Amino acid sequence: MDHFEALKKFPLLKDITDDELKELIKLLTENKFAKGDKIITEGDEGNVMYVLIAGSVDIIKTTIYGEKFVCATLDDSMHPVFGEMALLDNDKRSATVMAKTECITLSIDTKSFNEYIDKYPRAGIVLLKLMNLNLIRNIRVENENLKLVYQALIEEIESN
Amino acid sequence: MDHFEALKKFPLLKDITDDELKELIKLLTENKFAKGDKIITEGDEGNVMYVLIAGSVDIIKTTIYGEKFVCATLDDSMHPVFGEMALLDNDKRSATVMAKTECITLSIDTKSFNEYIDKYPRAGIVLLKLMNLNLIRNIRVENENLKLVYQALIEEIESN
Repeated sequence: MDHFEALKKFPLLKDITDDELKELIKLLTENKFAKGDKIITEGDEGNVMYVLIAGSVDIIKTTIYGEKFVCATLDDSMHPVFGEMALLDNDKRSATVMAKTECITLSIDTKSFNEYIDKYPRAGIVLLKLMNLNLIRNIRVENENLKLVYQALIEEIESN
Repeated sequence: MDHFEALKKFPLLKDITDDELKELIKLLTENKFAKGDKIITEGDEGNVMYVLIAGSVDIIKTTIYGEKFVCATLDDSMHPVFGEMALLDNDKRSATVMAKTECITLSIDTKSFNEYIDKYPRAGIVLLKLMNLNLIRNIRVENENLKLVYQALIEEIESN
């Protein structure tokens, strides 16, 4: 698969110039996963971000009771990026990402990412801004989810 | 108040050089608020980020039932920054920030912020990285909160 053509479709990379993208590609590692493989495991330490260029994955979280549930399914047509939180803060993975089909990803670790944005600061600013926007969108969704679960809790308490 | 000395204490600005900080200060506006003034109003459109250099503020959210509750109180000794989500995505304010005492803030809008990071990309990368880390910390806290409220809901349902 042509990495340049695949990555041109990713919203995260839309404002990167072709030359900047070619330099970025030199730092990426291609990984192949079989159906059922864990690409990321919840709770593990991590410092690698992935983009999915072929296949589909389940995002799986564990409840406080230890039950696992699929909170999203993503496929390559959505041009998903995952693992960006641990890339930036080197903290634990907040969810498991499991290959639902055969998958191909491109990945980058914290060290290579930091070297790239130091060397190509314009591209670095573009990437960091879009990563900020993704995080903000997640926070706004999570704020709404928290309100809904809180409302359900209040209604359950009041109905008894 | 000396803005340079005040801002040197902010974690968000710790990796900015003195020269970069002096250029940033030229773009900041000082605002004074009386006790009870709303610095930010939940639901409003916004594109301004604030740092609190004197006084204390309440962060107030509205439940789905329209009840307001104080979810945090911040004072200048904590060197808080607020409004950074709307600065970046120009979307609605997710909480109200009300002056609990007389307050002094320094603020910057999206246009000035973008001009600054374009002109000083090294500083821009430092700022955007720290803003990313703040957002990630908020997401990780909110993930835990969501788990706790969800657990309480399940326990309430099962007890009846």
